[in-house]
Parts: sequence; structure tokens; C-alpha cells
Amino acid sequence: MNETIKMMLEHRSVRKFKDEALTAEQIEVIVKAAQSASTSSFIQAYSIIGVTDQEKREKLAALAGGQSYVAETGHFFVFCADLYRHSLIGQWDGADVNDSLESMEKFMVAVIDASLAAQNASVAAESMGLGICYIGGIRNHLDEVSELLGTPEHVIPLFGLTVGVPDQETAVKPRYPFKTVYHENTYQSDEEAVRSELEEYNDVISSYYHQRTEGKRSDKWTEQMAGMLSRKSRMYMKDFVEKKKFARK
Amino acid sequence: MNETIKMMLEHRSVRKFKDEALTAEQIEVIVKAAQSASTSSFIQAYSIIGVTDQEKREKLAALAGGQSYVAETGHFFVFCADLYRHSLIGQWDGADVNDSLESMEKFMVAVIDASLAAQNASVAAESMGLGICYIGGIRNHLDEVSELLGTPEHVIPLFGLTVGVPDQETAVKPRYPFKTVYHENTYQSDEEAVRSELEEYNDVISSYYHQRTEGKRSDKWTEQMAGMLSRKSRMYMKDFVEKKKFARK
Repeated sequence: MNETIKMMLEHRSVRKFKDEALTAEQIEVIVKAAQSASTSSFIQAYSIIGVTDQEKREKLAALAGGQSYVAETGHFFVFCADLYRHSLIGQWDGADVNDSLESMEKFMVAVIDASLAAQNASVAAESMGLGICYIGGIRNHLDEVSELLGTPEHVIPLFGLTVGVPDQETAVKPRYPFKTVYHENTYQSDEEAVRSELEEYNDVISSYYHQRTEGKRSDKWTEQMAGMLSRKSRMYMKDFVEKKKFARK
Repeated sequence: MNETIKMMLEHRSVRKFKDEALTAEQIEVIVKAAQSASTSSFIQAYSIIGVTDQEKREKLAALAGGQSYVAETGHFFVFCADLYRHSLIGQWDGADVNDSLESMEKFMVAVIDASLAAQNASVAAESMGLGICYIGGIRNHLDEVSELLGTPEHVIPLFGLTVGVPDQETAVKPRYPFKTVYHENTYQSDEEAVRSELEEYNDVISSYYHQRTEGKRSDKWTEQMAGMLSRKSRMYMKDFVEKKKFARK
């Protein structure tokens, strides 16, 4: 197994960073690595906003639910789905691009593009010895986040990525068993098979929490999910996305 | 610059592969690397289908618009947004999870999760000396693709990833200038600034095509985009996504 893969398999989110800002060169390398990811039909439907202004970072940390590692970090990136440039091109060229821009398909393209870029950024950062954590919490209040970052229509801030020098040791969290996530030729939807696989996985996850918390926690994964999903969250999102002119058609 | 980043910066899509199937071990390592990516609140809202059946591969190649490198490849993965397991958990636990599962927010979570995993798979494959190409073309006909792969409600095949031993040399395609993709603190939406950056970028792209085709092509990027976006494509997607119980609320 090569060094790149070893490093990827050791990924864990980092939520405490040393007080050490990323250099301009580090930021540039991370962004260039992000840009090297594949992009659908060369559309490059994303932008990256780097937040260095400490006041903005603190506001974002609060909007994301009080996650201090948004403000106290080496750097804070926000990845945005972005068809704004494409909307301008339509105007300049007199091309009728609105149905495309407002289609569910192009919304998916933009979200996928931004995510591929972000994961390249993450791998690049980790290969430099830095730690990362995705911040989906910015989606708690996208109206405020958009206003803070000045994003226009055709742009949606999707998630943050906090990057810095790790100041904590965390454990790798066990994922689904291979057979649960990987299916050959046909999707395995048999309910009893899924149930037995997830029961097996519950044992793995319970042991992981038990060990990590010296016996204080032993949550099952299925219980975590049932709890999380029975709380409605960010139900304003459909209106927000459509207001920003995505996924309307 | 370390080896991992160097490799990422050299990424280019590969569309011709040697007739050499990936080993079971290679597939397992790629899938495990995919799973090591971050996942929103540990939801793991995706699945990966590996297609080894040659007849299915050929059907997928045809559905994707006649892309032969879907059938003639080392391995073909399909990445799916997947909340099917979560819907079962809701039933088993008697938890009311439907509003969550059908929310735009959770649709975005699933698309982002699947994309982060796929990009890790891509980087892992390339670190092993393999080549990759994303196949968005499977979204041309998702009804047929879903039927072929047996995906139920709460599952959407998002894109394929063809992986194999490269049998061609291709060039790295220049991305947006750094200042176009990366904004500091505030999104730069000034129309004249965008226009002048994209004109600069058009020159880069024209030269790239000119050189690569011995003068036969010199497309500008903005023209490519205006052309592509003025053709409506996959306008059935919103209905399909909603039929699969995503992004309805």
C-alpha cells in the first residue's frame, strides 16, 4: 500500500488547531490541488472563498452552531456551487442558458464539482501534515452566510473546510463493512440482509465508542441515525436553493 | 511539493485503457479509500456499485452516449446517493424520518457524501498508477440505469467512475486562474472584473487547444460554455430525483 493511500485511510476530522495561520503558498497549493479534480464537461461550477477576516470567521463560527474551530484555525475555506459566471456568459453571448442554469441536473453538477474539488483540497492539506474538518454547519443559516460573504444569485455556499496544524489526536472512525457499501452488478436491497449487516456494524460502532469514552458511550449507529433523522433540520433549504436560482426546473 | 500533491496536479481524464481487469485487492483498497473520506454527521449516505458483468457494462456504455471506455476498462464503479438504509432504520425504529429523508438538505448531504468518496477513490486509483474518468453520461437515462442496477427508492446513481491501466497519454487541461476561483473574504461578483478574467482565461484555453490539435481547434472557454448551456440537457432530472424521494421538501 502506497503512502498516499495509507494517509487517506488514516483520515480523521480535526477540531482543535494550533494558532498558526497557513502561508499564502500553502493556500495556493491547496486551491490548485482542488482545481485539479475532475469537472463535469469542463464547467468548473464552483468557487472557493478563503476567510481571513477574524470578525467574519467568528460570525461564521456562531452561525455554524458555535464551532470554535471555524474561528481558531489555520485557514477557513468556503466551497460554493457556482454558476454565476455562466449566467454572465449567457448574457454576454445572448445565449438562452436559463433553463440549463436552473435545472436540477446543473445543480447536481455544481454540487458534485464543488465536492470533488473540496476533497482534493482535503487530501492535499493532509498530505502536508495539516488536519481538516468539513463544516456543514454553515448550512444552518445560509441567508446570513450568503450576505456575509457577498454571494450573488447562482451561488450557494455548500460547506466550510477548516484547515490547520492539528492540536489533538483523534481516532479513525470505522466505516460501513465493505459488503454494506460495495455491491456487485446489482444493488442489494434485501431488507433482512441489510438489517443483519447493520447489526454487525452496530457492534463495531458500539465498541468504538465504548473504548474511546472509557465505557461512557456505546451508541449504535442505527440509533444515532434514527435520532438524527427524526429531528427535522434545515427544512428551509429547498426554498433557499430555488431562490438562488438552482434546481427550479 | 510532496508526491501526493504532484500527482494530483498531474490529473487528467483517461479514456482508453489496457485490457487488464483490476484485482479484487485493488478494488477493495479503492473502496476503502473512498470510505475514508469525511461524511456529514457520520451519515454515510452513499453506495458504490461495481459493474463486472460485461453485458451490463455494454448497456451502460450505450446509455452513457456510446462511451466505449465504460465497457473497455479495468473496472467500472457507479457512485450512488443513498438513503435507502436510513429509510429502513426509520421503519425498524418507528421513527418519523420521512421529512428528513425527503428534504433538499439531505439530498445535498447525500450528493456531497458520494462525491467526496468518489474523489478519494480517484486519488487512490491514480496513486496506484491507474487512470480514471468520471462518467456523468449515466445521467442521460437514469430510469434505465436504475433498473439495470436494481436501485430502489432513496437511491440515485450519480455518476460512473471508470478505472484502469492507461493506454493513452493526455495533457493536463488548464483550470481557471487562481484569482478567478479563489476569493478572499468576499465573493467578487463585479461583472467587468469577471469579464476581464475570463478573457484572459479564454486565451489560455485557446492556446491549449491550438497546441493540442495542431491548430485545428482554438475554442474559447466562454464559447464552449455558452454552447453547452444553451442546449437543454437532462431536463427530466427534477422529476426523477423527486420520484426517488429526494429533494421534495
